[in-house]
Amino acid sequence: MPAKLLYLEDISAGMKFRAGSVKIGEADIIAFAKEFDPQPFHTDPEAAKNTIFKGLAASGWHTMALTMRMLVEGAAPLAGGIIGFGGEISWPRPTRPGDVLSVESEVIDLTPSRSKPNQGVVTLRSATTNQHGETVLILTSKNLVFRRGHAPGETA
Amino acid sequence: MPAKLLYLEDISAGMKFRAGSVKIGEADIIAFAKEFDPQPFHTDPEAAKNTIFKGLAASGWHTMALTMRMLVEGAAPLAGGIIGFGGEISWPRPTRPGDVLSVESEVIDLTPSRSKPNQGVVTLRSATTNQHGETVLILTSKNLVFRRGHAPGETA
Repeated sequence: MPAKLLYLEDISAGMKFRAGSVKIGEADIIAFAKEFDPQPFHTDPEAAKNTIFKGLAASGWHTMALTMRMLVEGAAPLAGGIIGFGGEISWPRPTRPGDVLSVESEVIDLTPSRSKPNQGVVTLRSATTNQHGETVLILTSKNLVFRRGHAPGETA
Repeated sequence: MPAKLLYLEDISAGMKFRAGSVKIGEADIIAFAKEFDPQPFHTDPEAAKNTIFKGLAASGWHTMALTMRMLVEGAAPLAGGIIGFGGEISWPRPTRPGDVLSVESEVIDLTPSRSKPNQGVVTLRSATTNQHGETVLILTSKNLVFRRGHAPGETA
């Protein structure tokens, strides 16, 4: 977990956070895909050779799920948790067996709520890269943030 | 699997596809979250009561992963597979233990590629709803489509 969780008043555009790395193996890729994205290029290394991916590739949602884990582990240190309203996602290239992923997030925007003065929305741009420094996923997400003393369950 | 997979020339705006349903249990929610989104409102039914969710809620990425499975199972019957460039996602409300989800997708746009005449990009708007008819996820995705005879690995 990150050392310090951030409240609305701690956050400003340009702040950056990093987390990772996570290694993804062939068995992981196949197991995730069999449950959630059962297509040959994600589940069958042989069949994948004759697809547009020319070999096994992780489901984009698997890359996203691992990215989420890294956001929780420090790449989005928001007090009250990472509570997303939604966002935009793209996969510039596939994740491959053996890839080692890490994430860097940057605060793009912070908008205090007009109707709920103790809340706001932070826009984060998170880029997931592999061990070659190539970007495999970009997520621009809008997340709920709280002022200090106003996060549900907060004990501070 | 859907009865008929669609090529570029088969697709037009307004076409709709449905798939589901999938039931999501408390143990499923906790298992997914422990691996990919370890936050108390997704992993701990007791602790979740004191969060903004006021009870256990599925990770939004779990709802998305189940949505993807339903897209593969028929809600996005694209020849050559569902190969996404990216998209926009939102979660109007959380998925809860015991929810039964289904998906309806609509073709919003189809744009043949200028540089690759045997390919195109289809924009799908997919809405995932629970057993009460409430929308839990909306995904607007851009996906690669092929003309008949030009999908990699195609045997027809």
